[in-house]
This record gives sequence, C-alpha cells and structure tokens, in this order.
Amino acid sequence: MRERIHFYLTDKDSKIARGIDIFIYTIIFITVIDHALQTMDSMAAYHIYLESWEVIPIVIFSIEYLLRIYSAPNRVKFIFSFWGLVDLIALIPYYLGLPADLREIRVLRFLSLLKYEPASKNIAAAFNRIKKELIIFTVLAIFILYVAAVGIYHFENPVQPDKFPDIFHSMWWAVATLTTVGYGDVFPITGGGKLFASVVVYVGLGLVALPAGLIGGAFSEAFSKDK
Amino acid sequence: MRERIHFYLTDKDSKIARGIDIFIYTIIFITVIDHALQTMDSMAAYHIYLESWEVIPIVIFSIEYLLRIYSAPNRVKFIFSFWGLVDLIALIPYYLGLPADLREIRVLRFLSLLKYEPASKNIAAAFNRIKKELIIFTVLAIFILYVAAVGIYHFENPVQPDKFPDIFHSMWWAVATLTTVGYGDVFPITGGGKLFASVVVYVGLGLVALPAGLIGGAFSEAFSKDK
Amino acid sequence: MRERIHFYLTDKDSKIARGIDIFIYTIIFITVIDHALQTMDSMAAYHIYLESWEVIPIVIFSIEYLLRIYSAPNRVKFIFSFWGLVDLIALIPYYLGLPADLREIRVLRFLSLLKYEPASKNIAAAFNRIKKELIIFTVLAIFILYVAAVGIYHFENPVQPDKFPDIFHSMWWAVATLTTVGYGDVFPITGGGKLFASVVVYVGLGLVALPAGLIGGAFSEAFSKDK
Amino acid sequence: MRERIHFYLTDKDSKIARGIDIFIYTIIFITVIDHALQTMDSMAAYHIYLESWEVIPIVIFSIEYLLRIYSAPNRVKFIFSFWGLVDLIALIPYYLGLPADLREIRVLRFLSLLKYEPASKNIAAAFNRIKKELIIFTVLAIFILYVAAVGIYHFENPVQPDKFPDIFHSMWWAVATLTTVGYGDVFPITGGGKLFASVVVYVGLGLVALPAGLIGGAFSEAFSKDK
Repeated sequence: MRERIHFYLTDKDSKIARGIDIFIYTIIFITVIDHALQTMDSMAAYHIYLESWEVIPIVIFSIEYLLRIYSAPNRVKFIFSFWGLVDLIALIPYYLGLPADLREIRVLRFLSLLKYEPASKNIAAAFNRIKKELIIFTVLAIFILYVAAVGIYHFENPVQPDKFPDIFHSMWWAVATLTTVGYGDVFPITGGGKLFASVVVYVGLGLVALPAGLIGGAFSEAFSKDK
Repeated sequence: MRERIHFYLTDKDSKIARGIDIFIYTIIFITVIDHALQTMDSMAAYHIYLESWEVIPIVIFSIEYLLRIYSAPNRVKFIFSFWGLVDLIALIPYYLGLPADLREIRVLRFLSLLKYEPASKNIAAAFNRIKKELIIFTVLAIFILYVAAVGIYHFENPVQPDKFPDIFHSMWWAVATLTTVGYGDVFPITGGGKLFASVVVYVGLGLVALPAGLIGGAFSEAFSKDK
Repeated sequence: MRERIHFYLTDKDSKIARGIDIFIYTIIFITVIDHALQTMDSMAAYHIYLESWEVIPIVIFSIEYLLRIYSAPNRVKFIFSFWGLVDLIALIPYYLGLPADLREIRVLRFLSLLKYEPASKNIAAAFNRIKKELIIFTVLAIFILYVAAVGIYHFENPVQPDKFPDIFHSMWWAVATLTTVGYGDVFPITGGGKLFASVVVYVGLGLVALPAGLIGGAFSEAFSKDK
Repeated sequence: MRERIHFYLTDKDSKIARGIDIFIYTIIFITVIDHALQTMDSMAAYHIYLESWEVIPIVIFSIEYLLRIYSAPNRVKFIFSFWGLVDLIALIPYYLGLPADLREIRVLRFLSLLKYEPASKNIAAAFNRIKKELIIFTVLAIFILYVAAVGIYHFENPVQPDKFPDIFHSMWWAVATLTTVGYGDVFPITGGGKLFASVVVYVGLGLVALPAGLIGGAFSEAFSKDK
C-alpha cells in the first residue's frame, strides 16, 4: 500500500497521477481567485465565506503532505528535501495562526505548484548553468544603477530636493529609467540632468536588460527541452 | 460555370484572382476609415452618409459568401469550415440589426482579411508549433504578475488605499510595470514598495516578455517561409 | 581636369577624398548645431549671425553640386539619379526663399550625409532584402493597433469621452501602449478597459516590435558587411 | 620580497590573492553604502561618523597603490599604464581636498573595482571589436533623434511653446520616446505631432536600441568567454 501511494504521488505518466494533478491545480486556482477576492472592499459582506474556503486547500495539502511522508522510502530525507520544505513552508503560516498583516505569506503556498510541473528539473538545471553569469550581470547592473543615481543626484538634488533627496531615491529613478518603465514620478528637469540621463540610458539599457534576458532564456531553454 | 467561380475565388496566381484581392482590400480599407470617422464628433453632420457606406461591403461580402457556398465542391463542409464560419460571423451582426452599443462587433469582419493572405497557412502552422510553450509561458507570466501584485499590495495598500485597493488593481500595476509601459497612474511610494518593485522588474521583465517574443517569432517565421 | 574632379569627388580611398569628407561632415555638424541654436529664445540676440552662417553650407553644397554635374560622365543621368535628386532637394528650399514656417524642410539637406557614407550601398541592399516583410509587418502592426483602438474605445469612451473621443485618439493610446512608451496622458480606468489593455499588450508587444527589429537588423547587417 | 608582493597583487589563482580580492570588495561595498547614507537627511546626525569611514578605503588604496609602484618590474611604465592612472584618479580627489560640490568625483574610485575582475581583459577585447560599429550606430542614433526633434518641434512648438521651446528640449522628448522610457513630462498633443511621433517610434525604435544591444552583447560575450 505504501508503495502504491508513493507511486501515485510521484509517477507522472499514469492517468490517475494526471487526474490528481488537474485536481490540485483546480484547487490552487480557486484559492488564488478566492485570495484576491478577499482583498476587495465590495466583497466585504462575503468575507467570511471566502475565508472559510481556505480550509479546503489546507486540509488537502495537509493530507497530501502526510501521505508523502508516510510513503517516502526515506522519511527523514523527504522532510528535509527541497519539496518537503516547500510543503512545510506552505502549510506552517495557517497552523501558526499568523496575525492579519503577516498572512500575505500564504502566497508561498503557490510555490508548491512547481512540484507538479514536469519541467521543474529542467528549470533548475538551466538556472544552474547561468548562475555565475546571473550574479556577475546583477552586480554589473547594480553598479550601473548606482553610478546613474550618483550622477543624477549631483544634477537634480539642488533643483528638486524633494524628488532626489538622497542617493537611495535617485536609485529608484535609475531603476524606473533604465528598465524603461518611466512612471513619470521622478525625472530630470535641468539641462545637465537631461543630458546625463540621455547618455546613461543609451549606455545602460543593454546592460541592465542582461539579467532579464538570461532568466527568460533559461526558462525558454528549460521548456523547449521538456518538449 | 460553378468550377470557374470556384477557381477565381480560390486560385491565387491568376491575374483575375489578384485583381479581386486588391478590390476586396480596398473596400475593407475604406470601410475601416469610414468606421473610424463615424466615431468623430466633428463628423456628426456626415454620419448618415458614413453609415450608409457600410451597405456596400455588406453586399459585396454577402455576394462573395453566397458564391463561395454555391461553388464549393462540398457545400456543407464549406459552411462549417474555419473560413466559412469567419465569413458568417463577419456578416451576422449586420443582418441581426444589433443595437448601437453592440455593433463594435463589426470589427470581426476584418478577420476575413486573413483569408486573402497567402501566408495564413504558415501562420497557423507556426502557431501550432509554439502552442504548448505559449500556454506554459502565459501561465508563468500570470503567476509572476500575481506574485508581483500580492507583494506590492502588501507594501502600498496601507499607504495608498485608493491606488492599490485590492489585488486586482495591483495586477494592473504589475501589468503596466512588467511590460515597461509605465503610464504613471499607479506606482509605489514607500521604500519597501520601491525596493520590491525594483527586484520584481529585474526578475520578471524577461519572463513576461516571453509570450510576446514567441508570437513575434511565429509571425516572423511564417512570413519568411512564405517568401 | 574633368576626370580629375570626378575622381576626387567619388573615389573614397585617396587621402584628398577623405579630407573632403571630413571637411563636409564638419560643415554639416556646425550647421546642425547652428540650426538648433536658432530655435532657442536665449539666442534671439544672435539670431542674425546664426542665420547668416547658413550661407556657407549653401555655397559649398552648390559648388559641389555644380562640380558633380560638370564632372559626371553622363550629366543628364546624374541629375536624375538618386544622389543627384537628394542634392537638389537639399538646395532648393533655400533658393526658393520659403516662408519661415516651411523652412524646417532644410533638415532634408542632412540626407546628403548618407552620400559620403561608404556603407550606403549595403544599407540600400539590406533594405531591399527586407522590403516585402517590412510592408507585411507594418500592415500587421497597423491592424493590431486598429483592433486595440476599437476595443479600448468601446470600454473607455463612455467613461472618458475627453481622452477617448474617437478611434483616432484611441489609436494614439494604442501606439503609446504597444511600443511601451506609456506617457501617461491616456490610459484605461475601467476594469474592462484595463483587462483588455493587458491582453492586447501581451499579444501585441511582439508583433508591433517586428518592424523596428527588422530595420535595426538591416542596419546592423549593412554595417557589419561594410566592416 | 619585491617579487613576492608583485606576485600577491597580480596573481589571481592563489588563495591569498583571492582573500585580498574579497577584502577589497567588502571595503568598497561598505564605502558605497556609506557614501549613499551620507546623502540622507535622516542620517545628518551621524554624518561625521559616516564621513570619517572614508579614511579607511583611502589608506588601504594608498598603501596598495604604493605597493604596486614599489613592486612593479617597470615603475614608470606602471604609473602611466591604464590601471595606474585609474588608481591615481581614484585617489587624487581626496588628497586635493576638493570642495563639497565637487566631491561627487569620488565615485570614480569605484572604477578600480574593474581591476580586480579577471574578465576585464575580455571586456576590453570585446569592446575593441565593436568599437567601429558602436561609433557608427551612435552617430546614426543621434541623427534619428535630431530628425525626430526637428519634426516634433515643427508640430508642437506653436501649441506647447513651454514644453517644446527649442530643438534641444525637443531632443529630450526624442530620447525619452525612442528609448520607450516615456516619463510623460513632454508629449505631443496635436494630431500631426501624434502621427509624426507614431511613425518615428516605429522606424526609430530598432535603430536607437542598436548601441544598447551592442554593449550588452559585448559584455555577454566577455563574461561567457571568461567562463
């Protein structure tokens, strides 16, 4: 029996395992919608019903977690394995009865989605391959953002001390600009600041986009390999 | 005669077929401009003339539709084929006499443009090849947008309850930010929110752009193959 | 002598030809700066001096134009060749004494810059190769922008009739959004409009960027071939 | 002894050299944070402590600089080498006791970070390879920005003389638009201006992004070669 449960929970090719997958995904999907509806003011009247739904995924995931421990060939090893810990992290917040403002941690539960995804191994492998470059490019991006922030601070702080009060606020400008989001909450107004911003955008655009490109490429590779 | 009509409507290499194509494209182009002009206030005086133009494409497309049914080797099969249904969907709204606010559905008529495009088959084939990846990347993008929305809601809701009232409004922020559109209608103002937004933009930029890249690549492939 | 002038004006490898190139580029560069300074209010006092500078490039380009006609093996053919016409177009506005508000056409003169660029032929060849795709992708981009405009008009016109009064104004929103510029002058405020905008951005981003990618690629190819 | 010092400062494979690297990086990282904290108003009370920290990196880098000169096989050659000059530039501002508003030049000190990066040679090599293209594409980008600026000035100056007073301000619009940052501080409001902006964005997007793409590619190549 123990072997059978282990088989149904880990094998991905049988019809039953696929049925379990679809069931779990549906539960998680409803929970996500439920979670979002709880934050709406117009749903305040139904809050109690929306909140009680959460018991269902908790019960299901708790049972699944216990079955996995029970059926694991090596129980201690499973509990401290990556997916064992993800399961635990996903369940703990509910049982601890965290206060309202800390309960956003519930979103971590959706991490367990990845467990049911057959491409997860490929994703991990792809990220392992780009790990070193990702670190270097992130350091490089932060360096460029910092230089951009110092420069714009120098030009704009005397004129707009409320928008560029210090280098940390200037870095927010640098992030919004070099990722080309450009909300328009902070922007240079002096001639020198505009010229500096123009040069920085030209030089920095390609560099700041490097980590994003690497991550996108890693996912793209992982899924095309799975196919 | 029936065979002849069928030939002129489907063959793409004869001069007559190409002439029909250019004629149809011109009619559709004028209809699009006509359609846009009807929405202008300064054109209100000419509204009756602009609206009556619409009869012309309807008549032409109705005749073409009937000719296609008449000349099709298998009539029932044609009516329920993809292009047969597109033609029907494009014509129905007019004959049903839909009320003013539902008439925007007329835009569907322009779908029939694709029918005259020889690359249509390649587009369909290219999309078929990327179908699975497109679904996975879309799910992934929605997941990232959701995580971004929950995070920013946590940081900004207490300070800007009017801009980030619930997770659905926060998702709008996430879409505008991770596609780098950045209208500037909603943006984080707390230190934590800005830091979270910066990290999310770095990590998410490449992932959210994946579906767009796939679709662009599929079209690019379809047209270069046609060439 | 005629052959000698022809040689100096067209050969690109001799020292004298290169010297002429650098001289012409310097003149054009100063003219551009001069042109920009003339628009500044704080330069109003020096306007007369800035304007008189323009005589110098006109004289130089006129002499060069006449020398080219004189030295051309086939004079009629040169006058109606591409570069012959560009030269003419660049000079005409000045001699016609166009009124102030039409004189912006002077910027066309800078087109002649391309004449001195050895990679010009490669650029023309690269554009010739992508011509057909460029047209198709541009039509596709306009189609998507139109569909986006009709959709957002449907959602936002009843609520923001000042921002989305008709489909032409809605197309401006579509352009600013799908190129991810996102000024923030127009954006959806209804739930339906935001959802529609999110879907359109996802699907359309890759398609609208296709022409830009093609043009960038054509230039990149042209210059790397020249190298 | 001189040889030994030279070995420890330049060899990258020994444990001691790597230990020195980590130590230097930590010092620089703390200095950066310290530098940023000094600009915060809420840190004004601790300003004296934050400023005195700066003595530490100065002492360390001064000792290192002197040791490098002492241990260099050819001292004069080292002083006037690239890294020798970078070291000097990084130290000079402090010893000269520059007035407060010129002290931002301190950021140059962080350039010496690159000295400790084994990939530096690859970066230099990669940039050398793209040097010519980078110059051409930058000139091309500036040309497009200029044409965009002249065009938008023509359309918008009569209506928005405060936002588009001259071509230099119009270039700021061109930079913000063609890099898709789009702050929303300046944008066209006339029909002609919007149409012109739409066309320019389509054509120019790919061209203005070329330098950024080249720089990103050069870094990507440099680091992947190092790996």
